[in-house]
Amino acid sequence: MKKVTFKDIANESGYSKATISRYFNDPDSLTDDAKEKILKAINKLRYKENKIARVLANGKSEIIGVLIPDLYMHYYADLLTKLLVCSDKYGYKAIVFQSLDDSIKEKDYLEELLKYHVEGVIVISHVISSKELASMNIPLVTIEREDQYTSSINSNNYEGGLLATKHLVDQGAEVLIHINSGLKKESPAYGRIKGYRQVVKESKLESKEFNANFGDRYEEIVSKFKPIFNEIEDKYKGKKKGIFLSNDTIANVFLNLIVQKYNTLPDDYLLIGFDDSPISKEAIIPLSTIHQDITAIAEKAMYLLNEKMQERKKRHPKKDETIKHEIVDTTLIIRDTTRGKYEELD
Amino acid sequence: MKKVTFKDIANESGYSKATISRYFNDPDSLTDDAKEKILKAINKLRYKENKIARVLANGKSEIIGVLIPDLYMHYYADLLTKLLVCSDKYGYKAIVFQSLDDSIKEKDYLEELLKYHVEGVIVISHVISSKELASMNIPLVTIEREDQYTSSINSNNYEGGLLATKHLVDQGAEVLIHINSGLKKESPAYGRIKGYRQVVKESKLESKEFNANFGDRYEEIVSKFKPIFNEIEDKYKGKKKGIFLSNDTIANVFLNLIVQKYNTLPDDYLLIGFDDSPISKEAIIPLSTIHQDITAIAEKAMYLLNEKMQERKKRHPKKDETIKHEIVDTTLIIRDTTRGKYEELD
Repeated sequence: MKKVTFKDIANESGYSKATISRYFNDPDSLTDDAKEKILKAINKLRYKENKIARVLANGKSEIIGVLIPDLYMHYYADLLTKLLVCSDKYGYKAIVFQSLDDSIKEKDYLEELLKYHVEGVIVISHVISSKELASMNIPLVTIEREDQYTSSINSNNYEGGLLATKHLVDQGAEVLIHINSGLKKESPAYGRIKGYRQVVKESKLESKEFNANFGDRYEEIVSKFKPIFNEIEDKYKGKKKGIFLSNDTIANVFLNLIVQKYNTLPDDYLLIGFDDSPISKEAIIPLSTIHQDITAIAEKAMYLLNEKMQERKKRHPKKDETIKHEIVDTTLIIRDTTRGKYEELD
Repeated sequence: MKKVTFKDIANESGYSKATISRYFNDPDSLTDDAKEKILKAINKLRYKENKIARVLANGKSEIIGVLIPDLYMHYYADLLTKLLVCSDKYGYKAIVFQSLDDSIKEKDYLEELLKYHVEGVIVISHVISSKELASMNIPLVTIEREDQYTSSINSNNYEGGLLATKHLVDQGAEVLIHINSGLKKESPAYGRIKGYRQVVKESKLESKEFNANFGDRYEEIVSKFKPIFNEIEDKYKGKKKGIFLSNDTIANVFLNLIVQKYNTLPDDYLLIGFDDSPISKEAIIPLSTIHQDITAIAEKAMYLLNEKMQERKKRHPKKDETIKHEIVDTTLIIRDTTRGKYEELD
């Protein structure tokens, strides 16, 4: 494939090379007539579309940036998958950065993204404050992170906590227990705890919260879980325990500890997790859980970002000062760990 | 932040705007003296580095493309995570595309990537043939896919199959069984089957292969697995069964079926999976498996791609005609499903 040069376009259009260069770099400095003639020449030469040149010409890179924490957690991998599908629908490519909980990197990456003229950014990682993100003055949407100053899409975590805990009450729980993995107050996921507490308050049942920073490593989760399991076994012997765990990974650990001890999930245990991640199905006894609609989260995030990006491209864009927080419904998924009566495994 | 324009640089350097434009678009047309003076002016004005302009100036986009199938399988999510870390080390950003098994999309994406002047591509998705990939004439490395015409990094799947099956023999298996999920002959993962067959041949033990296309959905895997489980139960009653499964997800399904029936993994079952993915640890009985060194795979892929990209940037690049296939060692991970004698769960 022969490369078409500025010189070829100049010869074809009758303009100088410098003018052709201006066409790509500073098109507003040319008359409409000149622009039209040059465009015709380009089309005639079937100038291999050069996205980079087009970006310089009109500022439309057709690239968005996506900042994620990491893909170890299935939730993030799933969310990224769905975001890539959605951005593609809007004709955008995605440059993906993972910040691995490093705030310096996260800032560097954001700087880098601006240099590439990305048109917008979706931020899932949670190191930089929303205030700082907002100050960047670029179309931006955050997902499931602190979002005081940014437009955001989040799951209805509060509703999820309510649904999970109410279901435990409905199934006959006599004690309500919540176990979570170091959720922070400013994160949207903290709503799960609030939902749980609301039901505790209404039901007036005995209750207990365990808040442990389990970390990411499976072995670490297991070792930190054993004393919690023992405490629950001792303290609530004979009582029907309704246990809501803040994610399916830790719910599976707890389930395994119980099954390893009893060969089954005894009648006096009701367990429910959160996320509807693959492990909830793959567990030895399929886990009840709260479904997060990740497809809807990705679609709404991309829709909102696209609105902002299109506004920015207008000749006289409105200043984007409205902060939108959208909430996506969660659903109760009843599987086998909240049946109240689970038959012996056989 | 005030935007510095070509006009500002022109005023500062004493050259015309057209010359400044040439500096970014066709730098070779300027004298070294002119280039140096313009650069000084830019630095003085602390011209906000414009990557896009630099790409036009020197062809270095500092972007690579990564084509993945999807992130549902933990293996791909993990590989992408590691590739993002490695590309960052070499100063590259990654545009990520997922092709979702759609060959038309995959071709479109590759076309798109070329338009963005990506410097190289890593291809993990497996729809387009390596012959077609090679014809694109861009630095390119493939991972764990058909690779006849492309440089590639793969796990030593054959060695993994050998290690797994030998371990079953060592633990006293009387029958060797292999269950795999529709592996294709041309894929590197097919080496797992070859390794298994080699040990079957040497050991002269009775053996049986099951080849089922289980699909991606957990429920589908379970339903397709039940008849296989029943057949094994009937046919090899009382014999010590050494079962090698082609990945940990299906190994976990099989383990759950056994434990749901017997409350334990009986003495006459030895199970080993492949991948060392999280589910192998999170299973009700931790699964023996073959570890793939994904960090090493990502590092070698990026090293090889970088070599090719650097060569391409030279004034007189050598034509890249050597195809390299590098192999990364696998390791046997012994957990609890190949102990031969597993105590009752309690």
